[in-house]
Amino acid sequence: MSKLKVEVCLSPALFDFQKNTEAIVVVVDILRATSSICNAFANGVDKIMPVETRNIALEMKNKGFTVAAERNGYKLDFADFGNSPFNFSRENVEGKTIVYSTTNGTRTIHQAADCFQVIIASFLNNKAVANYLIEQNRDVIIFCAGWKNKFNIEDTVYSGCLVESLLESGLFETNCDSAFTAVDMWKHWKNNLRELIDKSAQRFRLQEKGLDDCIDFCLQLDETDIVPVFKNDVIVSHLNL
Amino acid sequence: MSKLKVEVCLSPALFDFQKNTEAIVVVVDILRATSSICNAFANGVDKIMPVETRNIALEMKNKGFTVAAERNGYKLDFADFGNSPFNFSRENVEGKTIVYSTTNGTRTIHQAADCFQVIIASFLNNKAVANYLIEQNRDVIIFCAGWKNKFNIEDTVYSGCLVESLLESGLFETNCDSAFTAVDMWKHWKNNLRELIDKSAQRFRLQEKGLDDCIDFCLQLDETDIVPVFKNDVIVSHLNL
Repeated sequence: MSKLKVEVCLSPALFDFQKNTEAIVVVVDILRATSSICNAFANGVDKIMPVETRNIALEMKNKGFTVAAERNGYKLDFADFGNSPFNFSRENVEGKTIVYSTTNGTRTIHQAADCFQVIIASFLNNKAVANYLIEQNRDVIIFCAGWKNKFNIEDTVYSGCLVESLLESGLFETNCDSAFTAVDMWKHWKNNLRELIDKSAQRFRLQEKGLDDCIDFCLQLDETDIVPVFKNDVIVSHLNL
Repeated sequence: MSKLKVEVCLSPALFDFQKNTEAIVVVVDILRATSSICNAFANGVDKIMPVETRNIALEMKNKGFTVAAERNGYKLDFADFGNSPFNFSRENVEGKTIVYSTTNGTRTIHQAADCFQVIIASFLNNKAVANYLIEQNRDVIIFCAGWKNKFNIEDTVYSGCLVESLLESGLFETNCDSAFTAVDMWKHWKNNLRELIDKSAQRFRLQEKGLDDCIDFCLQLDETDIVPVFKNDVIVSHLNL
């Protein structure tokens, strides 16, 4: 039996060249959108509604929704909170529908929306994501949100972590140069992740704005068993599909 | 004094997001275009005229030029030869102007043409390129040709080799995640380059067509001191600028 394929797409600008509408797309934006989404589900959020534009986020705020929204790291003025995973506390999110709009992450989710399924991954739910994918019997594209279409280290090294888990299952194979490179990065840095991230452009962007307090949190493995799944324009727990 | 910047662009589809028209752009297409161009200059070619389309290449052939042209690895029917570096022998190229058209490499050269200068690099002329760049006092973007806009391993690992040389000079610095990743790949694989390339998608593409005989040749370091420079629509040796 031929194996399932796993690929890594390193930037939204490269997605069309690798797109496979039959695949499950795994969106990755480690600093900070997909880590925040995973933490929200760990803390009992009911649904997350990713919206692309500031205007739609504002409209939803005026309709009474709780809104998490940032651009370039900064919370939008009308939003209830920004994009730190610490904002998605049990107190802030439990049982709620949160409207969510970020610089890179939410756009990436919508870009993949016509593929078979879109799920959300981060270090925080890696094992749950790997197990979920192993059960689905579908090709997988791991889609790095990057930074304004640029390649980034943190999404790439996490992609390597997930690719390694899938290859170790024996069900998946890859012939994708991005996947090989991501696995190499992961193998090389897995025991010194913070040292790697401290070199990255996004660390300096967050640090300048005083937003780098969440980095160690985002690098924790397997803090939640929930796989957020994008379905009918909202993100829900895989347990509620 | 602030240092010069070196960045790596991993795909033609990402170039616009990193473009700096004041920079020198170093085009890299290890398997095989830039290795072939370097070998042509090592063997005494006078000029290389990169042309983007099959039709222009045919027109130049009809005007009496020697034409090297391929698409997806295969020599175009009217061309004198294809894109193997072995075709660019002293017998075939010495003293001549060669018209040249390839799947990825020549398009990449034209995409960068409005930057300060475009030069051609490969393992074959790495030290010469590094020394040339160190003399120019300009920011540098290393531009990987990739494969039909996809990321590839061989251009990335060579970029890491060149970035390492530039950083070691003490004149350059980088804050570019692609550059950090390329250097990591180079440091990890420099003593086992062939093992790395044997995993790459391009190796399998070449192998299927019986065109992989040139891989070891393309991985040789510092076989020529010539830096090919793209100027006024042709590529010439830096010694003839």
